[in-house]
Amino acid sequence: MTGARPGPTIASIASELGLSVPTVSKVLNGRADVAAATRDRVEAALEKHQYRRRRPATVPPDSGLIDLVFHRLGSAWSMEIIRGVEDAAAELRTSVILSELGGEHRPPARWLDTTVARPPLGVLLVAANLSESQHQQLDRRGIPYVVIDTDGEPPADVASVGSDNWNGGLQATRHLLALGHRRIAMITGPWKMLCSRARVDGFRSAHEEAGAVVDPALVREGNFYVEAGFEQGLELLSLPDRPTAVFAGSDMQALGVLRAAHQLGLRVPEDVSVVGYDDLPLASWVGPPLTTVRQPLREMGAAATQILLDIARGRSPKVRRLNLSTELVVRESTAPPA
Amino acid sequence: MTGARPGPTIASIASELGLSVPTVSKVLNGRADVAAATRDRVEAALEKHQYRRRRPATVPPDSGLIDLVFHRLGSAWSMEIIRGVEDAAAELRTSVILSELGGEHRPPARWLDTTVARPPLGVLLVAANLSESQHQQLDRRGIPYVVIDTDGEPPADVASVGSDNWNGGLQATRHLLALGHRRIAMITGPWKMLCSRARVDGFRSAHEEAGAVVDPALVREGNFYVEAGFEQGLELLSLPDRPTAVFAGSDMQALGVLRAAHQLGLRVPEDVSVVGYDDLPLASWVGPPLTTVRQPLREMGAAATQILLDIARGRSPKVRRLNLSTELVVRESTAPPA
Repeated sequence: MTGARPGPTIASIASELGLSVPTVSKVLNGRADVAAATRDRVEAALEKHQYRRRRPATVPPDSGLIDLVFHRLGSAWSMEIIRGVEDAAAELRTSVILSELGGEHRPPARWLDTTVARPPLGVLLVAANLSESQHQQLDRRGIPYVVIDTDGEPPADVASVGSDNWNGGLQATRHLLALGHRRIAMITGPWKMLCSRARVDGFRSAHEEAGAVVDPALVREGNFYVEAGFEQGLELLSLPDRPTAVFAGSDMQALGVLRAAHQLGLRVPEDVSVVGYDDLPLASWVGPPLTTVRQPLREMGAAATQILLDIARGRSPKVRRLNLSTELVVRESTAPPA
Repeated sequence: MTGARPGPTIASIASELGLSVPTVSKVLNGRADVAAATRDRVEAALEKHQYRRRRPATVPPDSGLIDLVFHRLGSAWSMEIIRGVEDAAAELRTSVILSELGGEHRPPARWLDTTVARPPLGVLLVAANLSESQHQQLDRRGIPYVVIDTDGEPPADVASVGSDNWNGGLQATRHLLALGHRRIAMITGPWKMLCSRARVDGFRSAHEEAGAVVDPALVREGNFYVEAGFEQGLELLSLPDRPTAVFAGSDMQALGVLRAAHQLGLRVPEDVSVVGYDDLPLASWVGPPLTTVRQPLREMGAAATQILLDIARGRSPKVRRLNLSTELVVRESTAPPA
């Protein structure tokens, strides 16, 4: 497209739709007092014309709020992310509005309305993602967002921060294989989360590399919470040919496996080795202290905040997609098989 | 004082001080571009005249933000409070700005400036409190606040929510005495926090009631974190006449005591009983599952949010000072002494 054709304005869109300028403006500002059908028409026109609100070149640095949205709060895992975001935000003189989606991985329509009405400098989404339509609605209003530990493949223009889950799965499994284990179980996170699938692939690759075979019956889906580790752990450790090691997929699931082993009268690591994932603060305090894969959760929160504020303030971030490295931490929950 | 004498206005105060109305207004709104000496003069005049900003009779219910301020984030304890506040705030269509004071129990001056400039519907302070001057500065601007688990005795007009710490200390100790323990150690929270002192008093009262004697050498100050439990636990359990039971003061400290016992080759509960405090989600998952005192942390967060929003919206809350009850939960970490 060449020439001096002007971009769409609120006025030109209102005129095209036969609506008033305030009505189009209300939709853009997330106000509730517009009929649903009218909103849909306005959104469609905004999309057709690829309307983009201009952001001011500089935003006052200490007036800012960012939205930090978890699919679910409640674990020590989320607390680590929060601390990373809080530290980085405080340094950048920004405040953090915290909310959760009640376990959903997609924000409901109402969430977008509240956010757009505020609006924040930007949005951090943790283990959640936006629908294509929500993505475009934020985009049209000049509200950037960054995804931490995405639950799926975000569109190419969405910034994201994660950690090297595939490598973490690989390292945990290599450690168990090097100790001599050949019958290794894995409790995964939810299948729909990309990080879960990457860890399983690392688990499989380590087996291939060692010429070992994965028994599909030993790979079980969990949800990263302690109860799933306990339930799957009970089942796995009750099998007639039970595994000699369990890669628990998260520290919380590892804690559940430790309880399951205790309940079945199995000693860790003498009878069964257990590897966690995350290296939460409690990993070194449980009995026995957990061998685990360290995920730099605070650094992930801080990096995502920095990228978000760079975008919000009109600077191009150095990288838009970042995977921080993971590291095996060997403690007392792993040993050679009996 | 009788008659129709008008209350102070921004204009009357500006006139008295020989300042412009915008200057006084800037101070009230927490703007940074006023000289420190001028700000002090304005604050002094506002205090002298007992200036109070009028609040609108009704505040739009879904435009609201509240500030949730922790002295320190990072434990599962703070996550439980956060969840209680988030749930109640979402129901009341209010969003939560989360921040921490980096371990301080008094917000710094900069915190007040940022808060006043925002301003939120109200402020929730957790294990922290305001100085008298900060209290008055919020008060003058019509920003209410509620303290959760106060670190000291707040002024009589400050609303607060806590739990019955004295009774919690009493119940935990009665349980150990009833099992036959007579040499019982206690690891407290920080002395300066009121909740710590109430729990110790409950511990002492249970002893008196049973005609048992507290050995002052067995009462140690902690900080509610796991490391303090580990260090004090190591010292206590290494004494020549070591205690047969430890009331650990918090679940995190109890986790530290479990590690200390393990390191010294002592079994829990066979060689030493351990009681936690809080009943965090992990209390039932550690080895052995902890006997502990349940503090209704989520309910405390929710109740404080409700009281705060009642005050902010001009309704008188039913109670301004609330202590929710605590409850002993017996699991596997306690048994009669050997």
